[in-house]
Amino acid sequence: MPATNIEIDIPTPADGEHLLRLARGISLFEASDIETIQELWTEFASKGDESSWYHFIVSRLDGVILGFACYGQRPLTEGAYDLYWIGVGQNQQSRGIGKMLIGEVEKRVCSQGGRLLIAETAGKEAFEPTRRFYLSAGYLLEARIRDFYKLGDDLVIFTKRFS
Amino acid sequence: MPATNIEIDIPTPADGEHLLRLARGISLFEASDIETIQELWTEFASKGDESSWYHFIVSRLDGVILGFACYGQRPLTEGAYDLYWIGVGQNQQSRGIGKMLIGEVEKRVCSQGGRLLIAETAGKEAFEPTRRFYLSAGYLLEARIRDFYKLGDDLVIFTKRFS
Repeated sequence: MPATNIEIDIPTPADGEHLLRLARGISLFEASDIETIQELWTEFASKGDESSWYHFIVSRLDGVILGFACYGQRPLTEGAYDLYWIGVGQNQQSRGIGKMLIGEVEKRVCSQGGRLLIAETAGKEAFEPTRRFYLSAGYLLEARIRDFYKLGDDLVIFTKRFS
Repeated sequence: MPATNIEIDIPTPADGEHLLRLARGISLFEASDIETIQELWTEFASKGDESSWYHFIVSRLDGVILGFACYGQRPLTEGAYDLYWIGVGQNQQSRGIGKMLIGEVEKRVCSQGGRLLIAETAGKEAFEPTRRFYLSAGYLLEARIRDFYKLGDDLVIFTKRFS
């Protein structure tokens, strides 16, 4: 049963340290992933939610960050958005926090006129729970590029449509 | 028959004005495409080919730029590269210049250890010659995301593998 007293909001620059520490603790994220998340966070924290290309939301329990999501509009499209990252603290998984975060991203994308949300993930064994997560959240496995990340690790593209 | 006295090289910052004028004259490119090409060019011209994430090459006849291509490694992958843009001057098309450019990109990607080149293009009617171009250059139509750019305009992903 999802915890009911979890709140989702837009993080402030002061949340950066905690958010990045949480990301570093997620076993599926590699050093290069963390570096990328840090870059997107830096842009978001310096420009603010209104002006940044990347948007972050966090889920909190008693003020403590349990998970985060990062999304943004795909350049050169009308209404396509990318879910860049979604991460839930290593000890907080399977509590419905990811579902709450992705639901909030969808709500925000819709309210910004988005009609398509794209979630790219890896095809390797370790990401099977991630792929199951997207399917159970109503995403369609729409495309796959073989050996994209490296030999034997495909890119898997999930989509959800709102119109 | 392809012109044989066409040369391909890495442009210098001084080529920017000519290259962007040529891009603006290509009917398939929209204003937002030109804006993006300009951004990538600015990064390339300021950082140089060694340090820039984006790489440009141009084809010239008697010093005059006839076409260009822009490519770069896809972040978070081992050996996947994107062909971001390929453009041939509106009056210079169907002369084999695009084929020469894409061949040179492939050569450079291979020599940098790339094993996969990805070319994303549009599914709409106007891009049928572009899609035919990739197929005739040995690319595989590997994936498609419906209504990606806008309703009725899919993303079409071509790939070519070198290992």
